[in-house]
Amino acid sequence: MKKIAKKALVVFSGGQDSTTCLVWAQKNFNQVQAITFDYGQRHRIELKQAKKITKLLNIPHTIIKTDLLKTLTISALTHNQKITKGNKKTLPSTFVPGRNLIFLSLAAIHGHQQKISHIITGVCQTDFSGYPDCRENFIESLETTINLAIEPKEKIKIHTPLMHLTKCQTIRMIEEFGAIELLKHSHTCYNGKRPACGECPACLLRLKGFKEAKITDPLKYE
Amino acid sequence: MKKIAKKALVVFSGGQDSTTCLVWAQKNFNQVQAITFDYGQRHRIELKQAKKITKLLNIPHTIIKTDLLKTLTISALTHNQKITKGNKKTLPSTFVPGRNLIFLSLAAIHGHQQKISHIITGVCQTDFSGYPDCRENFIESLETTINLAIEPKEKIKIHTPLMHLTKCQTIRMIEEFGAIELLKHSHTCYNGKRPACGECPACLLRLKGFKEAKITDPLKYE
Repeated sequence: MKKIAKKALVVFSGGQDSTTCLVWAQKNFNQVQAITFDYGQRHRIELKQAKKITKLLNIPHTIIKTDLLKTLTISALTHNQKITKGNKKTLPSTFVPGRNLIFLSLAAIHGHQQKISHIITGVCQTDFSGYPDCRENFIESLETTINLAIEPKEKIKIHTPLMHLTKCQTIRMIEEFGAIELLKHSHTCYNGKRPACGECPACLLRLKGFKEAKITDPLKYE
Repeated sequence: MKKIAKKALVVFSGGQDSTTCLVWAQKNFNQVQAITFDYGQRHRIELKQAKKITKLLNIPHTIIKTDLLKTLTISALTHNQKITKGNKKTLPSTFVPGRNLIFLSLAAIHGHQQKISHIITGVCQTDFSGYPDCRENFIESLETTINLAIEPKEKIKIHTPLMHLTKCQTIRMIEEFGAIELLKHSHTCYNGKRPACGECPACLLRLKGFKEAKITDPLKYE
């Protein structure tokens, strides 16, 4: 694929999907930066792993402290709550209402200040986790809204390279990029464990993906 | 007008337009709350006046500290910069990129936590100040985006009672509500002066409105 001679900003959590996005961005853009939001997540290990990964990839990395979401909302990711999966009636307890709305908006503003028009996020609606702010219709609507709000000279574009991939396909993507070993450092476990618990909804989804891809997960499990 | 038997949250800056919105909300909703963002604005007087006005109206008031915007963006409202009006090519130096995007999104999230579905903002595109995030197409797009992001049980509605009014009409509205004296406490001056400077773009727009409405501004000027 031909590189776009432009700068891109990856919204990077330290997880497996956004790690894949970092590598995707390096293949597709000339200059890549990463932005991570420290929103008071219970598991600080995420931030530590995020730093480790950007350092390995030599990507400039900004961590923005925004504990505002923790003040405004309650979720199992920021508060000591039981982790429950969602169903047709209820959203999962790990849903932080408005998280992607705020993070992607802040990323666009941060990018705009540095004349970066390409924002990359690892949201995905295929292995649908029950989060409404991971769907394509939300991202498209947000992209329109951000451009109306900021009225930039060059339109801001939100790229979602994983949107229509299964976890299995995402894992194959990073393997094809020759960077599967990087996922050893990515953090997935909702219980904040390293070695990972292998039992929470996030670990299970990850393990299922590796199994389907017939690739060994380089991450250590309990 | 018949009151909507519901709760509303007003995004309140302490200025003349959002003060009018507070009074409008009290006429139209049973329970009104206010939210103010402390985004590191140079003129702290705005926050002081905001507190005074909500106290006078007996409206519960939350002030949310979010100096994040000051970190991410540079504008004459948060930094020591010359105040310039915009033109066809340039936005005014007082434009804080993404401000209404972030504030209205945070207000919606804050409201959602308290089962408030009605958000009120005093943005207005009539006396167009050059801010893209005050236009109706932005607000409509944001409302759609917020609902897609949060997927609330009851749809979130953003009300903009001043959108199509001139400053003159806004002033007449609050006078008809019998609350014109309240504007004595509202803060408008971009130079942060009380008595107001009467010369900055914001003071000039306010004075023009009062002149056209043939009403005396209760605010003191230098």
